[in-house]
Amino acid sequence: MPEVAPKNNLSTNNGEQENTYCSDSNSSPNTSRSSSPPRLRPKYNRLIERINRRKYSGDQWFSLEFFPPRTNNGAMNLIQRFERMARGKPLFCDITWHPAGDPGNTEKPTSSTCISGTMVNYCGIETMLHMTCCNQSVETIKQNLQKAKDLGIRNILALRGDALSENGEWQHVDGGLNYATDLVRLIKQEHGDYFVICVAGYPTGHPECTSYEDDLIHLKEKVDAGADFIITQLFFKAETFIKFQKDCKKIGITCPIVPGILPIQAYQSLRHIVKLSKLEVPQEIIDAINPIKENDAAIRNFGIDLCVDMCKPLLKSGEVSGLHFYTLNREVATIEVLKRLGMWNEEIQRPLPWKLTANHARCKEEIRPIFWGCRPNSYVYRTSNWDEFPNGRWGNSSAASFGDLKHYHLFYLKSNSTKEHLLEMWGHEIMCEEDVWDVFYRYITCKTNKMGKQVTEIPWDDGEMSAETTLISDKLAEVNRQGVLTINSQPNVNAAPSDDPKVGWGTPNGYIFQKAYLEFFTSPENVEVLKEILKEYPLVNYHIINYTGEADYTNCDESEPVAVTWGVFPGKEVLQPTVVDPIAFKSWKDEAFALWVETWGKLYPVESQSRAVLEDIQKRYYLVNLVDNEFPKPSCLWEIVNKMLARSKSKRDLSDCESVDE
Amino acid sequence: MPEVAPKNNLSTNNGEQENTYCSDSNSSPNTSRSSSPPRLRPKYNRLIERINRRKYSGDQWFSLEFFPPRTNNGAMNLIQRFERMARGKPLFCDITWHPAGDPGNTEKPTSSTCISGTMVNYCGIETMLHMTCCNQSVETIKQNLQKAKDLGIRNILALRGDALSENGEWQHVDGGLNYATDLVRLIKQEHGDYFVICVAGYPTGHPECTSYEDDLIHLKEKVDAGADFIITQLFFKAETFIKFQKDCKKIGITCPIVPGILPIQAYQSLRHIVKLSKLEVPQEIIDAINPIKENDAAIRNFGIDLCVDMCKPLLKSGEVSGLHFYTLNREVATIEVLKRLGMWNEEIQRPLPWKLTANHARCKEEIRPIFWGCRPNSYVYRTSNWDEFPNGRWGNSSAASFGDLKHYHLFYLKSNSTKEHLLEMWGHEIMCEEDVWDVFYRYITCKTNKMGKQVTEIPWDDGEMSAETTLISDKLAEVNRQGVLTINSQPNVNAAPSDDPKVGWGTPNGYIFQKAYLEFFTSPENVEVLKEILKEYPLVNYHIINYTGEADYTNCDESEPVAVTWGVFPGKEVLQPTVVDPIAFKSWKDEAFALWVETWGKLYPVESQSRAVLEDIQKRYYLVNLVDNEFPKPSCLWEIVNKMLARSKSKRDLSDCESVDE
Repeated sequence: MPEVAPKNNLSTNNGEQENTYCSDSNSSPNTSRSSSPPRLRPKYNRLIERINRRKYSGDQWFSLEFFPPRTNNGAMNLIQRFERMARGKPLFCDITWHPAGDPGNTEKPTSSTCISGTMVNYCGIETMLHMTCCNQSVETIKQNLQKAKDLGIRNILALRGDALSENGEWQHVDGGLNYATDLVRLIKQEHGDYFVICVAGYPTGHPECTSYEDDLIHLKEKVDAGADFIITQLFFKAETFIKFQKDCKKIGITCPIVPGILPIQAYQSLRHIVKLSKLEVPQEIIDAINPIKENDAAIRNFGIDLCVDMCKPLLKSGEVSGLHFYTLNREVATIEVLKRLGMWNEEIQRPLPWKLTANHARCKEEIRPIFWGCRPNSYVYRTSNWDEFPNGRWGNSSAASFGDLKHYHLFYLKSNSTKEHLLEMWGHEIMCEEDVWDVFYRYITCKTNKMGKQVTEIPWDDGEMSAETTLISDKLAEVNRQGVLTINSQPNVNAAPSDDPKVGWGTPNGYIFQKAYLEFFTSPENVEVLKEILKEYPLVNYHIINYTGEADYTNCDESEPVAVTWGVFPGKEVLQPTVVDPIAFKSWKDEAFALWVETWGKLYPVESQSRAVLEDIQKRYYLVNLVDNEFPKPSCLWEIVNKMLARSKSKRDLSDCESVDE
Repeated sequence: MPEVAPKNNLSTNNGEQENTYCSDSNSSPNTSRSSSPPRLRPKYNRLIERINRRKYSGDQWFSLEFFPPRTNNGAMNLIQRFERMARGKPLFCDITWHPAGDPGNTEKPTSSTCISGTMVNYCGIETMLHMTCCNQSVETIKQNLQKAKDLGIRNILALRGDALSENGEWQHVDGGLNYATDLVRLIKQEHGDYFVICVAGYPTGHPECTSYEDDLIHLKEKVDAGADFIITQLFFKAETFIKFQKDCKKIGITCPIVPGILPIQAYQSLRHIVKLSKLEVPQEIIDAINPIKENDAAIRNFGIDLCVDMCKPLLKSGEVSGLHFYTLNREVATIEVLKRLGMWNEEIQRPLPWKLTANHARCKEEIRPIFWGCRPNSYVYRTSNWDEFPNGRWGNSSAASFGDLKHYHLFYLKSNSTKEHLLEMWGHEIMCEEDVWDVFYRYITCKTNKMGKQVTEIPWDDGEMSAETTLISDKLAEVNRQGVLTINSQPNVNAAPSDDPKVGWGTPNGYIFQKAYLEFFTSPENVEVLKEILKEYPLVNYHIINYTGEADYTNCDESEPVAVTWGVFPGKEVLQPTVVDPIAFKSWKDEAFALWVETWGKLYPVESQSRAVLEDIQKRYYLVNLVDNEFPKPSCLWEIVNKMLARSKSKRDLSDCESVDE
């Protein structure tokens, strides 16, 4: 009789979360085990382990190469492109080393190091940074490696780099690192197994090398020095790669070799690349491109066809499970190729309800305060000094302090929009509070403003509105119109399936729960009334606080976070990834109040009426959050807010009457 | 306008759980706080803090005094009495020091130290141990203190003890501890604030003291030496205590003074006590008792009336919030007095779904594996070597190993019943497996057996069946009758109120959830079929294991415990106090299989048929546990088990036919 198969829907694979828990015990079924349980520890899986695992399982994967942008604006656009391309689930992305762009500078948004740090930490993509060794002191290289390590980068593509003298001849520098092999050795020597090291392979031999055979020997040296895998230079025919792979094997290169794929996207870029790489383009490709060289779309389509035709035999060869794409920072052609190969998988199954980072140090992170739900980058930035991340429950890990947020204009924290665009959305002139209310109202309703512009963002929101907000947008619109300026909210959810398109997350066959949450700025007049009304709702948790923190009302126990989102899954403990934490709220309120002026007010001149209105709101308004603990029942938060608005209005009317009477 | 009151239904007071979480930050409302969150740490509240808190809040409390039993049987009965009296929620209980009973022996169930260790660890009662210092070496006293500390006892009543020579005169021993004051000093010196120290006060002066005034001065010395509070000798009139309390205050004794109350229960015991304590019984009491001295019930009723009449003015005086009862190891009179005073509160609100211990080291403990749900004492015993207890989630804390259970007959682990009673319930003779099935069937159904006896326990169950088991007892009975020998189970529960009488626990206004769980022993023939059937139920987690552990089937990830009971409460993270943990299950199965022989089989002679049947079951049967992850739907576990029984039967029928054919 066959054994009951251990594999079934109870898989604990957490979506794209690549990290696993391992135990010290070597346990296998059908054996008795020690009654002393092993220590469990969470483990980050190194890129080479992920590649090897796929090699054995036969699961196909791809990776994407980008080069650093020239301008800050370009960086902003590129980051958005990373996010879009991340949806197809590349195994990793890499950034080339751009010596002219101050590549080791961690303060400069366009530098190779900075952009790869953003990729891993803020875009949630496993990242590889290229690094060259020529024409640099060993000290500089060591510093660059340290900087990459500090940013959480775990993969380096070690290259020699361009060492040509002005007359085009290669220069040997005494005491420097002259070969990629030297760089591989240095990385191993300085950092052991911390970095996964990739090296370049040349399927037709390195252009500067004496022979194809000599070049293979150099490649073997790089691998022997400690390289974990190889990515190849581009090539034009599948046979080229397959022969190269065989030749590598022959001389004892056993590590994974990943073919580098260039979808031809334009005539100019092909010429440029060919010139740089000194490759010979096969005559049939030249013949095919020449007649259409002025027609970009035609070339791209030709390039896609060509690329798909080349990749198919590679994948079918059984020797290739991953493809590395030279994207040239463009997305259309690569995505199309991947789609045609059936390797682009945009299926959305969020592992957790908030945006993950790919920083290995955060692989345990399972819980965050709800406050940064719409500003995940700010949260990642402010907690980047943490040694440990809360895991399973918020508990004691909340004891680590939040880093200060002084720089509201750090490029990965600020809006993608230009100042002019922000003014068009938020108003060139703000005369009164109601003008501000109107901005919130239009943001929620997606209605155009007086300028005919849609308000697609507000300062408290990193990206677009979440899908679940649309579940309550009518109610939100109604209260925003009346000066309840909502910046975060979630509806209550009672046992929704974990694959629900709006509120789902985690593995399939789970159940998702949420307590209704509402967070808003509102006037002190409203807050006075609200405090009275809240006495009628003992099962609502609240925090009410002003700019200075001097007025601070709550019915929460400071040491008790409230879980507001949790999920029950087959074969697991209950996951509770979002909490309202009274202590974290104090850090958040500083950030939330500052945004009124830092991101919005500062768009206007210092003495302007517009700036004065925003500064007045910052100083006078309260930040309120409400949690309705009765998650199985319809949320009472709307009732509370509407009561507040009604009673506040009648108080106002009454005092108006009184002043008339006088 | 009044502030919104912070007190409401969101109270975080966890039933009788007396421990609180405190933070390092001195935070108060209406002030802004540092944005660096304080470290949180769980805190055990010392008895004196609890007493003081009640003094200020005016909440009345009581404590109960017991003396150690003479026999192991007496110990068993006394422990059951502790459990019954614990339901009324005494603030603490204390055990007197019985010098003749080897009081410091931690191996002897009847010793003062042992019985108080049982009280705190297994009965869940905050415990005070009396200790005397006369006629003992300082070394012995130090050892006794250390033993008490090792057992988790945090409170000592420091006494001089009986130091009379044979001729009735008091003997001063050079170099020894001659006074309670010396013992108080020793405790402070050796253990700082670890122990809360109580001392005795004599409202009419110590019988051996020169004068009432001198005795007050000695009392002041004891307090000055470090005593935290005072319990008085018994007295007969409220005025006696009130005067004493005033006199203490006058000479500067400011610690709490708790009146010691004796409900007169019988003529003989009164005479005995009066003789020992050298107290004078007021004439009116003698006059009242004399005519009824042969009538125990009448004396007890008189004693209760008298006691209530004395306690009322004490409580009304405003100077007394706690009463200490000399129970004389009886319960009726004391409970009646407490009920009449309105201080007996049996309201059941379990803080957690399993039985708590009062050991301060376990105040953080929030999660346990479900396996020991019916054997909590064994769990406490086997984890008593743990330094930390899992809190919030099972996670890494499960890494600590379970202590071995070699001694199945430790007195707090074994049945309260005599061997004869066990044989009457479980059968003097067991001829076949079906006889065993019948025992399980009668246990579940509460039906009497052939001997006309009710089966009120089985070896896998510490106490009576849980209330929630009755929800599924019909289904359990049906399968037990057919050889599915269930030892643990719970029904699925979807958002039951936390004050539900059967499945509720924790604070009010919460919601309770459970995944259906079933654990049973069954034959290898059934297991063969079950393994096939389970393939049809991918959302059921299972473990199937045999005695040796050589056959071990599961679809669980070894490092992932499954939460099977959890609660969602206002203002809190999700609590998940019960898990199915694959690693802990390995320890449990050793215990569960051993009980077949250790507790049951060994009732019969070595070579007997009865013993052979039980040993055969132990070696042949499998232990199975099943979790249905689909908690919102009706449990499919019954369907699975019934399918198993049906298919197993038809296989049997078929093979019977085949053998007939041959």
